Amino acid sequence: MSTAPGYFVSFEGGDGAGKSTHVRLLGKWLGEVTGREVVLTREPGGTELGAQLRQAVLHGEDLDPKTEALLYAADRAHHVATVVRPALARGAVVLTDRYLDSSVAYQAGGRELAEGEVEDLSLWATDGLLPDVTVLLDLDPDEAAGRLSGSPDRLERAGAEFHRRTREAFLRRAAADPARWLVVDSTASLGDVQGQIRVDVAARLGLTPEVPA
Amino acid sequence: MSTAPGYFVSFEGGDGAGKSTHVRLLGKWLGEVTGREVVLTREPGGTELGAQLRQAVLHGEDLDPKTEALLYAADRAHHVATVVRPALARGAVVLTDRYLDSSVAYQAGGRELAEGEVEDLSLWATDGLLPDVTVLLDLDPDEAAGRLSGSPDRLERAGAEFHRRTREAFLRRAAADPARWLVVDSTASLGDVQGQIRVDVAARLGLTPEVPA
Repeated sequence: MSTAPGYFVSFEGGDGAGKSTHVRLLGKWLGEVTGREVVLTREPGGTELGAQLRQAVLHGEDLDPKTEALLYAADRAHHVATVVRPALARGAVVLTDRYLDSSVAYQAGGRELAEGEVEDLSLWATDGLLPDVTVLLDLDPDEAAGRLSGSPDRLERAGAEFHRRTREAFLRRAAADPARWLVVDSTASLGDVQGQIRVDVAARLGLTPEVPA
Repeated sequence: MSTAPGYFVSFEGGDGAGKSTHVRLLGKWLGEVTGREVVLTREPGGTELGAQLRQAVLHGEDLDPKTEALLYAADRAHHVATVVRPALARGAVVLTDRYLDSSVAYQAGGRELAEGEVEDLSLWATDGLLPDVTVLLDLDPDEAAGRLSGSPDRLERAGAEFHRRTREAFLRRAAADPARWLVVDSTASLGDVQGQIRVDVAARLGLTPEVPA
């Protein structure tokens, strides 16, 4: 747990698992049950500089893995210094759609860089700020792909392999630090998933709200 | 010395010491005496991405020291991966106006970050690429300021203190690694400074050209 008076919750997982929806629903509910200010944010791109960097990373020229890792770390350093830490110091609940575990899972899971290097870079960038709770919305990438199209072509299969390794990296990290991570099967109904998140996040944060129906 | 077939020379020092002029003159001369391709470049901003990052660092919102360090490191990683290493692999002479020692001297000399942290970040970003020779164009910042105006106002004095610490950091680094560094008093005449640089750089690179008049 961070020592700031606020609460810091990150959401992780592949695209299509529903992170932005559950961030919004959990944020609204936590605001109601705690009476605290709620800050919803995301990485990359949660600041003005971050939006520029997101553009450079996602839509610019091809970047080598270390350049990419350093840009994500710069975005994270700025996001933490200007948005997350000030909000936590005010006592707010901060929910972020992706944080450092995405960098580690995507970049190290993609086997381009060592997991420890990517993690150390982010820990240096943020002065060691870790979330109080990290929610992993777990989804089999084959299932995610299956929802989108029929039989995958060669490029999509290559993508599926990458996403399979990334999922494994998330699950490995979650298993290694169960005090921080909460793994949720995102194939359940929206209401069931959100209900489980509310109960478990409240317990982790030491809140004692009514259990939602 | 790097193991690449090319030669890698960096120029360091404060603004106003004549780096860009001496980079150009030395590059032209080295091209003539070696017959090699010459690449003149700079940091930050030696690539398309670098130009965007330079804009973000120098003209955007205020950035905390770690964000700034990570952006410079990202620029450096990309510059080395896409410009410097390919040129060295072709056997070119690469001259850069600023390299990692500027990050260390300005950021650590400014006392915001530990020198070792900034250096380690750049070494990670570049896979440990150091110049064969680094030319420090040394200039007393009071003298540089004196050339520009009369009595300094309060802000300029604060700037002078920062530039004094930065100069000390450059000189300290040069003293610690005399095999890589060449320290030149930039208050001598342009011809004398360039002459000394040519003789000493040629000796360091193992070239045996005629000594310029």
